[in-house]
Amino acid sequence: MNIFVINSGSSSIKYQLIKMPEAEIACSGIVERIGLENAVITHKTFPAGEERITKLMPEMPDHAEGLAQVALLLTDASIGVIKDPAEIEVVGHRVVHGGESFAETTVITREVKAEIKKLFPLAPLHNPSNYLGIDVAEKIFSAAIQVAVFDTAFHQSIPEKAFRFAVPASFYYDHGIRVYGFHGTSHKFVSEQAIAYLGKQDTKIITIHLGNGCSMTAVKNGRSIDTSMGMGPMNGLIMGTRAGDIDQSMIFHLVNQLGYEIEQVHAILNKKSGMLGLTGFSDMRDIRAEMDKGDGAAKLAYDMYAYRIRKYLGAYTAAMNGLDAIVFTGGVGENDVLMRYMCANGLEYLGINLDREKNEAKQSVLREINTSASRVKILVIPTNEEQEIASQCVKLLTSQAIER
Amino acid sequence: MNIFVINSGSSSIKYQLIKMPEAEIACSGIVERIGLENAVITHKTFPAGEERITKLMPEMPDHAEGLAQVALLLTDASIGVIKDPAEIEVVGHRVVHGGESFAETTVITREVKAEIKKLFPLAPLHNPSNYLGIDVAEKIFSAAIQVAVFDTAFHQSIPEKAFRFAVPASFYYDHGIRVYGFHGTSHKFVSEQAIAYLGKQDTKIITIHLGNGCSMTAVKNGRSIDTSMGMGPMNGLIMGTRAGDIDQSMIFHLVNQLGYEIEQVHAILNKKSGMLGLTGFSDMRDIRAEMDKGDGAAKLAYDMYAYRIRKYLGAYTAAMNGLDAIVFTGGVGENDVLMRYMCANGLEYLGINLDREKNEAKQSVLREINTSASRVKILVIPTNEEQEIASQCVKLLTSQAIER
Repeated sequence: MNIFVINSGSSSIKYQLIKMPEAEIACSGIVERIGLENAVITHKTFPAGEERITKLMPEMPDHAEGLAQVALLLTDASIGVIKDPAEIEVVGHRVVHGGESFAETTVITREVKAEIKKLFPLAPLHNPSNYLGIDVAEKIFSAAIQVAVFDTAFHQSIPEKAFRFAVPASFYYDHGIRVYGFHGTSHKFVSEQAIAYLGKQDTKIITIHLGNGCSMTAVKNGRSIDTSMGMGPMNGLIMGTRAGDIDQSMIFHLVNQLGYEIEQVHAILNKKSGMLGLTGFSDMRDIRAEMDKGDGAAKLAYDMYAYRIRKYLGAYTAAMNGLDAIVFTGGVGENDVLMRYMCANGLEYLGINLDREKNEAKQSVLREINTSASRVKILVIPTNEEQEIASQCVKLLTSQAIER
Repeated sequence: MNIFVINSGSSSIKYQLIKMPEAEIACSGIVERIGLENAVITHKTFPAGEERITKLMPEMPDHAEGLAQVALLLTDASIGVIKDPAEIEVVGHRVVHGGESFAETTVITREVKAEIKKLFPLAPLHNPSNYLGIDVAEKIFSAAIQVAVFDTAFHQSIPEKAFRFAVPASFYYDHGIRVYGFHGTSHKFVSEQAIAYLGKQDTKIITIHLGNGCSMTAVKNGRSIDTSMGMGPMNGLIMGTRAGDIDQSMIFHLVNQLGYEIEQVHAILNKKSGMLGLTGFSDMRDIRAEMDKGDGAAKLAYDMYAYRIRKYLGAYTAAMNGLDAIVFTGGVGENDVLMRYMCANGLEYLGINLDREKNEAKQSVLREINTSASRVKILVIPTNEEQEIASQCVKLLTSQAIER
């Protein structure tokens, strides 16, 4: 089954063509700067296991043209991987916000689209772009079933005591103000792998997704019961450019005492905060280099980033009254040896014992980096959101076929 | 030594006259509605161990007149406890915000007053009233030494990784935006009592102050290393009318999508949120009564309040990599049996084992409510901020006398 996975952003489309059930990536790529000068498509194919990169810079006024160009590449006479767009049986769309309407992966109907549109106010930066991706994919891959995989869906199992805020109840009932959580596809993917590895369903796991965005999830018996992001993707852990948890008093202080505009504060907390705000750099590798040169701000930022994660580890251990495994994933979680050490070392009281040597091994497969005496398994599991989207599409269509 | 302890608010003055070192309360009281219609002084004396209440409703245009009236009561021919205001040797002022300038209790000089004034922008609701209290006390008790005891001082030992926010570094360096923490006098008082009770200095303690305001502090070897309130008193735990931790996205959503004014949002998060926002009641006893009648919102609010505390218990256990004792204090912490149960039950993984029977005993002295097998002591310790202010005054003056 050919599944085309799309992640449509405001000026970009990321995509992969995955052949299921083998989970073989036929091609992948990204369209960038849609509607801007110098738009570019970076398209990867894998003839005979080698990676071959094709770069195109066509005129690209909009998402429709962007995806049409991608369809041409898919069916290109020399580098194409299919003959006809109709060979795409399913298009799996990453949709950021499913609100309370979608706790599961869903075939996209007119009603589903209407519901995604209703959620624009809750995810004004993401849902409109995701919606646009669906619109254009329906035209270009008109033979395919369109499926939505929601970033929030995995977190719909969070109980009310954890998803509500202590604000006027009408904010929730009238305006949907609550914890939704994000990165659900990744947390689901790695927690399922961890459960399979532990060999039992009855498990208490904390998944730590550290990429550009960062979040942690408490996964009890396979279900998310709490997560660090809330109604938006700004709070919780410290991220590349996002602040994570702050004291809300700061916002009122900036506006009322220091004369900032509310929009300025929003932009600063999203784009000029986190590791960037602390150090001037948002990429952990740059910050590490600064730290190695003796830069105090870089050292502090590393400390703060790890300390926040350590506190969430404790909080979620308390929330589950126990812990079987913690999972590091995402670009930083999979690759930053020092950060993993800073997060997991010296937590023996919680049963977490890191093996420094195992932690330093560089492999990109599931691996265990705890000591043999550790009560808690410490796992590194590469995430693969596209593959998870593809498998969810397969599962959904298989189960629907069975029901029919 | 006669120590007069003052807590001066925007329209009120709370006071106690404490004889040290016996810590005997000679009288106590509160002046309310200063500058408003129907101002009232409620003054308590304790002749022969009986409580005697005197109520006065004089004209009271300002704090100066309020405190002058109190001085008359102190020296009153029939209910007075001293003959002359000059018998007050020390006035101990509660000052909310000491910023980074004051890590200790301090004799008030002109420079100290200037510094407290500089901190008005950080504590616009509290420091101006505290300052005013100092001004009038200097005139009325001109023979006394004036001493400032800061709510933030105990938390000045918090390390930078815990007191900084992941926002542009200039916010800290130029504007003092950081975690200060509050309720320091209470956290210090009960943690010192817990340390004495445990009989060792090398301890890991979490103090839980639950009153109208609520906060938790991780106290390692007698020093605060983290606390749940930040630069203001709104975040952290769920309180009577304050939200505690929220996702900052909510604020931008309320302003940008729902048309709220920023000042409205500030007022709602301070005065209409917390338990009040969730249930319509801010007093735990009312909420408990509603819950006992089967009210779902009250049950949820209790769950949320406890769940937040449980997560902080875990977070601070991780921060200290261990835990010797937790301490409940404040009106709710000392008296709400069910809430203590909901906070501390089912945390065996952290070594916390509550004894349900001991938890139900009603006494207002330091007591242990854990099982004998519990690795962690669970203590209930009545707080007494006025007494702590008086002892800090004594300690300060004694040590200064020795230095001279």
